[in-house]
Amino acid sequence: MKVIVLNCGSSSIKYQLFDMPSSKVIAKGLVDKIGLKGSLIKHTRGSESPVIIEGEILDHQQGIEYLLGILISEKHGSLKKISDIQAVGHRVVHGAEEFSGSVIINEEVIAALEKSSELAPLHNPPNLKGIYAMQQLLPDVGQVGVFDTAFHQTMPEHSYLYAIPYVLYEKYKIRRYGFHGTSHSYVSARACEILNVDISTQKIITCHLGNGSSLAAILNGKSYDTSMGMTPSEGLIMGTRTGDLDPGALLYIAGKEDTSINYTNTLINKFSGLLGISGVSSDMRDLEVAAAKGNHRAQLALDMFAYRVKKYIGSYAAALGGVNIIVFTGGIGENDTETRKKVLNGLEFMGVSIDAEKANVRGKEAIISADDSPVKVLVVPTDEELMIARDTYELVS
Amino acid sequence: MKVIVLNCGSSSIKYQLFDMPSSKVIAKGLVDKIGLKGSLIKHTRGSESPVIIEGEILDHQQGIEYLLGILISEKHGSLKKISDIQAVGHRVVHGAEEFSGSVIINEEVIAALEKSSELAPLHNPPNLKGIYAMQQLLPDVGQVGVFDTAFHQTMPEHSYLYAIPYVLYEKYKIRRYGFHGTSHSYVSARACEILNVDISTQKIITCHLGNGSSLAAILNGKSYDTSMGMTPSEGLIMGTRTGDLDPGALLYIAGKEDTSINYTNTLINKFSGLLGISGVSSDMRDLEVAAAKGNHRAQLALDMFAYRVKKYIGSYAAALGGVNIIVFTGGIGENDTETRKKVLNGLEFMGVSIDAEKANVRGKEAIISADDSPVKVLVVPTDEELMIARDTYELVS
Repeated sequence: MKVIVLNCGSSSIKYQLFDMPSSKVIAKGLVDKIGLKGSLIKHTRGSESPVIIEGEILDHQQGIEYLLGILISEKHGSLKKISDIQAVGHRVVHGAEEFSGSVIINEEVIAALEKSSELAPLHNPPNLKGIYAMQQLLPDVGQVGVFDTAFHQTMPEHSYLYAIPYVLYEKYKIRRYGFHGTSHSYVSARACEILNVDISTQKIITCHLGNGSSLAAILNGKSYDTSMGMTPSEGLIMGTRTGDLDPGALLYIAGKEDTSINYTNTLINKFSGLLGISGVSSDMRDLEVAAAKGNHRAQLALDMFAYRVKKYIGSYAAALGGVNIIVFTGGIGENDTETRKKVLNGLEFMGVSIDAEKANVRGKEAIISADDSPVKVLVVPTDEELMIARDTYELVS
Repeated sequence: MKVIVLNCGSSSIKYQLFDMPSSKVIAKGLVDKIGLKGSLIKHTRGSESPVIIEGEILDHQQGIEYLLGILISEKHGSLKKISDIQAVGHRVVHGAEEFSGSVIINEEVIAALEKSSELAPLHNPPNLKGIYAMQQLLPDVGQVGVFDTAFHQTMPEHSYLYAIPYVLYEKYKIRRYGFHGTSHSYVSARACEILNVDISTQKIITCHLGNGSSLAAILNGKSYDTSMGMTPSEGLIMGTRTGDLDPGALLYIAGKEDTSINYTNTLINKFSGLLGISGVSSDMRDLEVAAAKGNHRAQLALDMFAYRVKKYIGSYAAALGGVNIIVFTGGIGENDTETRKKVLNGLEFMGVSIDAEKANVRGKEAIISADDSPVKVLVVPTDEELMIARDTYELVS
């Protein structure tokens, strides 16, 4: 079965075409700058080099039409006809309290998503655009929604509630939802496969460190706590997001700089994090180069990032009553050996012992703890698209 | 030497008259409802029962005049004449980056405090009122400022900076300052005395749990990190304060409920925390009564409070690379055996082993860890006034 996975952002669509159940990636790409000047599709067939196809792309539906056209084109295509696609999997950011697992998309699901757009005004509307477009273009094909929040719906009340007036939870559903659920779920399960242990007996901390970053505390296979909150602004320091911040300080800033909530939201989400501290870049690799040249604020951003990850690991170890497995994933988690080293340094007291040689691994599955380490530490590259393809395949089959 | 210690709030003044260096409390009391209806002084001489003296008290200077009058009165007094008071110690909430220790108050210090009032608009102005009044009333007596923030001035940059644009730190000094420094400093030092260990070799986590609550991570006697931030709103769940809260959620609330920053500040500081969750009370004891009767939200507030303290302990253990000593203090920390139990339960993985019998202690110094526990856990009642009196005595002598 051919399954296409879509991840629709405000001005972009990431896509991957899978053959299932073999999980082979037939083609993948990015529709970029939708509705903007210079829109284009970057398409990769199999293991070939990517091609760039430029052209005006006014909206998501047009972008998807074009990419489907490429998939059946003589020059770059992989399919004979569009109807070879038998299922569509959508990454959906916010499933609120409605969805604790992946679902076949129907009118009821769409209504629930439209309702929860309120909670994720930047993310859910473009996800919905992808769904609407596919309903138009492939009306007879099953579509599945896979939610970033779903895995975390098992969190207990004391993890997901904030210490705000309870009525704000009742009225507006203000609570911790957490994100990157597909990734946390995948890498925790994969780590247990690698270690050949039963996930239902394990205390696991997963560190998804990328441009957006979050940790999850996973007890017996179920999400127990996670660092992102109602929004992705909470928790770790990210490329351009503050993560945790004194609420009093935030209101102080809002009062000082500008009273507009939109502006303050932009400040904490676009101008903060690694970029805000360093003034150099939101990208870890740029910061490492700058720090090596003696840029103090770049070094500071790197130190602050690692320090906060370390603190969250300690926090979740306490929450779980200890930890058996720590997993690193995401662009930084998989590749940044320096950051991993700083994070793990000093965690011997909780049973972490690292094999310095093994810890140099980048971008592939590996156990990096010492053989006799009570806590197993792993690198597991994440593959959210594959997880979405699998859920889609299972639900549509 | 007779030393009077003042803790001036917006409508109240707490005071204690010490004989130093014996540390004997000669008298203490509270000037309450200053500028409000029903203003009064509740005064206690030595070990006598408190007396209540009612009367109109329009401002801080008048309140202090009255209390000095009581101290030399025939009926309730302890001194022959006002000039027996040889030093005044003031608790000052916010010393910003200016003060890393206690200081003799002079014009320069006052100018710096007036400047930092901006950072603590609710706290520093009444502290200053007390200072102005004493300058009028006892012009020849040495006055000392003891700062809630001073102890935490040793925090490293990666602990005290937020992941916001660096310019906001440069322009407005927005950073973590931390509070309860006098208490964290006192109980950590006292715990080392009790254990007969050298503080300069210890990793200590101090838990000041009261109506306001904070934790500190103390490395070799110096504050390394603390849970309150630029303001006392950050960190643990408190009586009526949120503590940590997703910054995105806070802006969402501000947008939903009311766009005024003042209102939102009131919401997170006065209507949140234990009160907000439970809808019952901001007082732990009321919540325990309600929870025992089956009130779910009261139970939830208790669980959330303890869960967050537990997570911070884990977080600071990771920050310090392990922990040797955990100290509980403050009204809740000293007396609430149930909360302590919930906090410490499950921390065996980091070397905490509790003696269930000893752990029943309330309100007095005790080691509550098991004799063979690698991590020593203590209850140490805090005495901020005594610390202020000591610093004052030392500086004035």
